[in-house]
Amino acid sequence: MTVLSEFSLIQHYFEQLSTQRDDVLLGIGDDCALLQCPAQHVIAVSIDTLVENIHFFADVDPEHLGYKSLAVGLSDLAAMGAQPAWFTLALTLPEVNENWLKGFSQGLAKLAKKQNIQLVGGDTTRGPLTISIQVHGFVPAEKALRRSGAQVGDMIYVTGTLGDAGAALQLQLQKWNNVALNVEDKSYLRQRLEQPTPRLEIGQELAGLASAAIDISDGLLADLGHILDKSGVGARLDLAKLPLSLAMSKVDRKTAERFALQSGDDYELCFTVPPQYFSEIEQRFKDQCTLIGTITDDQGIYFIDDNDALIALKGTGYDHFPV
Amino acid sequence: MTVLSEFSLIQHYFEQLSTQRDDVLLGIGDDCALLQCPAQHVIAVSIDTLVENIHFFADVDPEHLGYKSLAVGLSDLAAMGAQPAWFTLALTLPEVNENWLKGFSQGLAKLAKKQNIQLVGGDTTRGPLTISIQVHGFVPAEKALRRSGAQVGDMIYVTGTLGDAGAALQLQLQKWNNVALNVEDKSYLRQRLEQPTPRLEIGQELAGLASAAIDISDGLLADLGHILDKSGVGARLDLAKLPLSLAMSKVDRKTAERFALQSGDDYELCFTVPPQYFSEIEQRFKDQCTLIGTITDDQGIYFIDDNDALIALKGTGYDHFPV
Repeated sequence: MTVLSEFSLIQHYFEQLSTQRDDVLLGIGDDCALLQCPAQHVIAVSIDTLVENIHFFADVDPEHLGYKSLAVGLSDLAAMGAQPAWFTLALTLPEVNENWLKGFSQGLAKLAKKQNIQLVGGDTTRGPLTISIQVHGFVPAEKALRRSGAQVGDMIYVTGTLGDAGAALQLQLQKWNNVALNVEDKSYLRQRLEQPTPRLEIGQELAGLASAAIDISDGLLADLGHILDKSGVGARLDLAKLPLSLAMSKVDRKTAERFALQSGDDYELCFTVPPQYFSEIEQRFKDQCTLIGTITDDQGIYFIDDNDALIALKGTGYDHFPV
Repeated sequence: MTVLSEFSLIQHYFEQLSTQRDDVLLGIGDDCALLQCPAQHVIAVSIDTLVENIHFFADVDPEHLGYKSLAVGLSDLAAMGAQPAWFTLALTLPEVNENWLKGFSQGLAKLAKKQNIQLVGGDTTRGPLTISIQVHGFVPAEKALRRSGAQVGDMIYVTGTLGDAGAALQLQLQKWNNVALNVEDKSYLRQRLEQPTPRLEIGQELAGLASAAIDISDGLLADLGHILDKSGVGARLDLAKLPLSLAMSKVDRKTAERFALQSGDDYELCFTVPPQYFSEIEQRFKDQCTLIGTITDDQGIYFIDDNDALIALKGTGYDHFPV
């Protein structure tokens, strides 16, 4: 943030848009920002990069892109049960397009304001369009939702509905379509892809209740798989319980389930709950999450098929970087 | 950091290379890292991006690139008087080249180990080679070296020597050469460009002594200019005192001065010292820094020419992103 024109760029488009927080002693415009962490809390940090033509289409609405760039980071804070505080932006641009910058910064600002998170630093450079955002939040250390805490007998929940973003992506790529989906359905799905909702409120409320959590960026199977790996347990899923949106409910069930299990970008939370908190979760968050299975001592993920047989699931989530 | 193969990439090449710090409650491998800030300190953060063909040559030694990617961030911590603690890495790669990753991560690890800074998170994506690193350090809030504290009568110092990196860049671009420079000189200059020394030790010692500081990434004029702007003061420089390396001392003085004033990438510190600390600075840091001028109430930067006339300096530093 020391180059003259990058500084003026950031200053002009981003500085005034963000919330002002009391714990920011020094924000944009020095060698570093100076930030005050509250007592009895630890800082949760995560950095994510979005690259043109890999993570988003070149013609995406820049306002939606700005929103999503911050949303994916906030989703990581949600998955730790952390409260958002600050973010930094490393923006690589092929050219200075004021319309694009205006839209992008407005999309960022909209979500930043809503979640009371302040832009405290950044770097703007010339090059192929690449957006890296680091988010910072607070959480009491003992309440943080790690991936490693799931135990045999815990229930598995997910927030919202699954597969919407994945279906929208396949529709946009023209690799899939379904006659049951009307214009409104497709518009809804696209909105879920481009402007996902980071589940911060429920994430913070789950801190201290859930035994493990992750956000679903790469698909339920891949991300639940991380919880299982880190916790040394397995899972049994009831596919009939996978929560679908009204739009995806119109699609044949097998196809909708495949999206729900394997496609990414939903940014819902998957979390596990120990027996003593079942009833509390059901009472407090009934409308926000769905029970989809249980943690077992098997290796891997199994599900019950139409004939009530136990089948090992194959395949993992969507991978941005196949090697 | 939630995509399968990016995770294994980071894990394989980066995870084991870094120092392990007690204040990292949770490092790589969850939705967020969890970090503990010491009491009575604030967190200093800075993010910087290096883009291929903008900030480095495509054929640069990946070990030098890894080193430099972290060095530029550490230099920002040095300029705040902060002590390094953690860093994150957002790495966009066109392909998985194991030799490159090995060299890059070794260069990173070399400097990370030396400065006791731990890699706590990251994201690896496919795309044009782009490296964003965010550094995090600690400093007591009241001792942090801001750009805004310079006052009329303060002395202006710089660490090390100036213009070496800029000369090396012009040599590599074949836009400049000088017969006085032999192979060892050119090798020295290139080493200063590719492996600059973040001035962390003196930066931390200056915290509480210096009235303002900045690191010289864009050239002395541009970066000193930031101190002057933020502090609402001017400066008078004695060009004869600009510190030059042995190599640059062989070049005609006017050319060497131009590099020292206007070229970037030296990553030395420029700082100002109030009268009551002159003698302490001279005693403690005599071999590490050079007095080059004074803070005045003029606007802008003036220097004394060969005829002892006061001349306004024109032109600013090197700009990575001319608009």
